[in-house]
Amino acid sequence: MNNNFGYAAYDAHTPLRPFDFPRREINAQDVLIEILYCGVCHSDLHQVRNEWRGATFPIVPGHEIIGRVIETGGAVNRFKTGDLAGVGCMVDACGVCPDCQSDQEQYCDHTVFTYNSPDKHTGLVTYGGYARQIVVDQRFVLHISDKLHPAAVAPLLCAGITTYSPLRHWNIGRGDKVGVVGLGGLGHMAVKFAHAFGAEVVLFTTSPAKVADGKRLGADEVVISKNPEDMQKHLQSCNFILDTVAAPHDLDQYLALLKRDGCLCLVGVPDHSHPSPSVGNLIFRRRSVAGSLIGGIRETQEMLDFCAEHNIVADIELIAMQAINQAYDRMLKSDVKYRFVIDMSTLEA
Amino acid sequence: MNNNFGYAAYDAHTPLRPFDFPRREINAQDVLIEILYCGVCHSDLHQVRNEWRGATFPIVPGHEIIGRVIETGGAVNRFKTGDLAGVGCMVDACGVCPDCQSDQEQYCDHTVFTYNSPDKHTGLVTYGGYARQIVVDQRFVLHISDKLHPAAVAPLLCAGITTYSPLRHWNIGRGDKVGVVGLGGLGHMAVKFAHAFGAEVVLFTTSPAKVADGKRLGADEVVISKNPEDMQKHLQSCNFILDTVAAPHDLDQYLALLKRDGCLCLVGVPDHSHPSPSVGNLIFRRRSVAGSLIGGIRETQEMLDFCAEHNIVADIELIAMQAINQAYDRMLKSDVKYRFVIDMSTLEA
Repeated sequence: MNNNFGYAAYDAHTPLRPFDFPRREINAQDVLIEILYCGVCHSDLHQVRNEWRGATFPIVPGHEIIGRVIETGGAVNRFKTGDLAGVGCMVDACGVCPDCQSDQEQYCDHTVFTYNSPDKHTGLVTYGGYARQIVVDQRFVLHISDKLHPAAVAPLLCAGITTYSPLRHWNIGRGDKVGVVGLGGLGHMAVKFAHAFGAEVVLFTTSPAKVADGKRLGADEVVISKNPEDMQKHLQSCNFILDTVAAPHDLDQYLALLKRDGCLCLVGVPDHSHPSPSVGNLIFRRRSVAGSLIGGIRETQEMLDFCAEHNIVADIELIAMQAINQAYDRMLKSDVKYRFVIDMSTLEA
Repeated sequence: MNNNFGYAAYDAHTPLRPFDFPRREINAQDVLIEILYCGVCHSDLHQVRNEWRGATFPIVPGHEIIGRVIETGGAVNRFKTGDLAGVGCMVDACGVCPDCQSDQEQYCDHTVFTYNSPDKHTGLVTYGGYARQIVVDQRFVLHISDKLHPAAVAPLLCAGITTYSPLRHWNIGRGDKVGVVGLGGLGHMAVKFAHAFGAEVVLFTTSPAKVADGKRLGADEVVISKNPEDMQKHLQSCNFILDTVAAPHDLDQYLALLKRDGCLCLVGVPDHSHPSPSVGNLIFRRRSVAGSLIGGIRETQEMLDFCAEHNIVADIELIAMQAINQAYDRMLKSDVKYRFVIDMSTLEA
């Protein structure tokens, strides 16, 4: 075991603070990454406050990791020292189940998440990217283009793939009208991707202050969802709505905006259920409510390559590691445009 | 106007009783049908008791109608006097919207339902099949094969198409494992169709008394849904589950049985919403909850032809018109195998 260092939540109620923890030796298939940047995802906050339950403290959060390869195991053939590399929400999966075999490791029953997941190597839990280094099996490491600023690429590893994957799965493109609910870390990426895929994009937000930004990011129209008259104008007009809001809210107002066979896809996990949607809203237009979880490694690489080709990154605010607790407070108030990213060079400042 | 005669609910609380009402003259595109049999659908009961609200009394229910053509309008080219004919849940739609143009008239904003719908011809409401005769535009009349017993064909017009259509829409066939929830009028048809399409069929019922019947009807396995251990055996194993139960119930126990990308499709309309399903159950396997409404006229004809070819009919109990109120009482107790059909020759007995 080697020494690692990062920031951890020691329990569900106190601020994150410095944490020394072990890092495993690299195995033949492993890549050792010196972390440059780590995005701050709302699920980091859910987990450190144990809102999804199942927390094993201390937790070192962080699953939007960009770094540089500084050492590789003997069997590593996909990375070499000096490469820019990314790690997202997963660091392992069984590899043999139908989900893994079809490049959908995120749905495997044995997915090992990047933090707060049982770690077979150490017998402890996995520790994430709010840290100096991370060791990951090369199968779960992504190639990162040097064309884009790596700090702004970091959020693609979770916010990016979480929105890219459902838009691809539901074949969104030219000729489609797509709704995006919420303009946060996920929502702003959803707007960028849906626009890049050629769809007509309508952003639904509760915040009038976000109208201009929504348009700048690629929305053709921004609707204040608290205004029933404005919502009415979009009744039965959308093919697909990607709902990025994790707080419980009324799904029927969005179901009503879908055409026949339209799908309302949820990517936020609320700590309590949404109010139950009306069965009539499903039946009378053969609509559906679905969910989608991040994306597989192969698709994550495809998304990163697409972003490099189309010059797509997240809009970020770069912070020092020591500012993480204030960043959480601001995130809770949706006061971030649109993703905090930790500059890991500040870790030991 | 001509005189018609049938049974009607005069209000939401008293038994159905005889009702004289006007029947419109036939127009050029119309077919006049002497009704032989009419199925008794649970939605008849919902409507006469005004559980879905919007009732205009008196209501003559009935939308599973089999009869014989006794007169045709001057422009009718698809039917002639003496033909067996069927009428289902719809008697008109706009004909020009995208839904109508793609043979999905059931999703048209201007669908005229067979009863309790505004009737542009009379200025009253439409009256259904618990009656001597009905006049319907030929576009909404189905051809009925004489190979099958017409009484047992009647329920295909609603219970049949309501289950056939989603199984076809979601491409159910050989290699699929399909769950059917509930063994009533809809459920017993769903089992027959899913079996006929080559799927492995698992019936979920709360009633141990229905196990043998479920297997006779085509289920490969029957699971008592109140037994958690038996439910566990089917976790993450179904491609598709057709839920025919109209009473509010726990959807999560069925979502958990779906594989990745599986769909739980609701075809029953409860008077109150189901408890809200867990977002995690959707997201962690990219599952969906959808709804489906009857089927278009073209698909209804396809279904009737499929049934004639494969010798599929409903299991019915034939009743006299005067027994309708007792039949409703029994239907409420699920005491029917599996559909009441009114022998309309008893109407004026």
